[in-house]
Amino acid sequence: MSHVRAKLAELGLELPIAAKPIAAYVPAVRTGNLVFTAGQLPLVDGKISLTGKVGGAVTVEQAKELAQICALNCLGAVATVADVDDIVKIVRVVGYVNGVAGFVNQPAVVNGVSELFLHIWGDVGKHARSAVGIAELPMDSPVEVELTVELRS
Amino acid sequence: MSHVRAKLAELGLELPIAAKPIAAYVPAVRTGNLVFTAGQLPLVDGKISLTGKVGGAVTVEQAKELAQICALNCLGAVATVADVDDIVKIVRVVGYVNGVAGFVNQPAVVNGVSELFLHIWGDVGKHARSAVGIAELPMDSPVEVELTVELRS
Amino acid sequence: MSHVRAKLAELGLELPIAAKPIAAYVPAVRTGNLVFTAGQLPLVDGKISLTGKVGGAVTVEQAKELAQICALNCLGAVATVADVDDIVKIVRVVGYVNGVAGFVNQPAVVNGVSELFLHIWGDVGKHARSAVGIAELPMDSPVEVELTVELRS
Repeated sequence: MSHVRAKLAELGLELPIAAKPIAAYVPAVRTGNLVFTAGQLPLVDGKISLTGKVGGAVTVEQAKELAQICALNCLGAVATVADVDDIVKIVRVVGYVNGVAGFVNQPAVVNGVSELFLHIWGDVGKHARSAVGIAELPMDSPVEVELTVELRS
Repeated sequence: MSHVRAKLAELGLELPIAAKPIAAYVPAVRTGNLVFTAGQLPLVDGKISLTGKVGGAVTVEQAKELAQICALNCLGAVATVADVDDIVKIVRVVGYVNGVAGFVNQPAVVNGVSELFLHIWGDVGKHARSAVGIAELPMDSPVEVELTVELRS
Repeated sequence: MSHVRAKLAELGLELPIAAKPIAAYVPAVRTGNLVFTAGQLPLVDGKISLTGKVGGAVTVEQAKELAQICALNCLGAVATVADVDDIVKIVRVVGYVNGVAGFVNQPAVVNGVSELFLHIWGDVGKHARSAVGIAELPMDSPVEVELTVELRS
């Protein structure tokens, strides 16, 4: 059975089908053993359940849950070009957090990504990570996540 | 004849000569089959024709045109370390959009990049893409674009 | 003797020990010949000497010095997975600058990174670089830097 799907199921989660981008790009690109994903919003069936700024309309805890959805969507994006069970290393995560002025706890939000990957892969899931507070995001999303992974060669 | 130059010529465009960065960095670096470019501003002959924030002094349509110039400059940057006709895959695009507060249509701006690459390469030009709204950009540019490509090995 | 450590010593600097991230991620990940670091804050012994926005509480010159500390911490991050003397190319630097509204001189800040690498490696240290002005950073840091390097194969 798929290791990734089994670990997601333990949390009541499923690997999503990647949404088709609405422009001339794709959810993910493979180059050699690496897969780079497009920045993923916390879309479920094409919609974001909660929009606005973290520390304002959206709490840190809510944003962390949305970040987990972004992480799922990143894995769904990888699945468009590779088998997610062939992921041997989570290389890099960038978490863009849309917070109110003065909100500086981006790491707590992006932990929603990191903790999911830790659950799935343990130490192998530990990655290099940047967390920054940007000014605005598409669709007024509270968070956007970009992922780079290494595949079994 | 150069495929890239021919496709650009169809749009009345030319591959620019990369501007020399004004600091201790370079327009692009090759590592293995990958080329990573520096973030490119919409400079033409060292100047940006229109500055300020998208949704304010700059319209979305204008910003999209500036994003196309950034994309051209990204290709000019690649050309400093490789032949652009050796590009076999557009791996990753990051579009940093400098919008007014509340501007959340970054994707429409970054389409100026994606549509140019689609024109040049068709499906091969489809890439993983992140579009985010940042607070400010160098020279008050409305947009900055960073590119990663894969070369023929 | 270590080339990197010797060049740092010329500036009165030392390679820092990477701080343990406070979440489920790591300072750096190696994939093939590449090392991607996590975004590094200008932490010294776990603290940032000066917080706030560039152009406000923090001058450009101070922020440039903090950017140099970020660069040192990036090298300390690389050192967790490789020998820094095996670095053969600085591939990519992203400098996230936390400035006041209207601050557009991000490049002057990120020069603190680029000039350090130039000092250590000369032309080999020249890299592709993006400098952007973000809205907020973790711990109210004035700057955050992310690094990708190529190692001797």
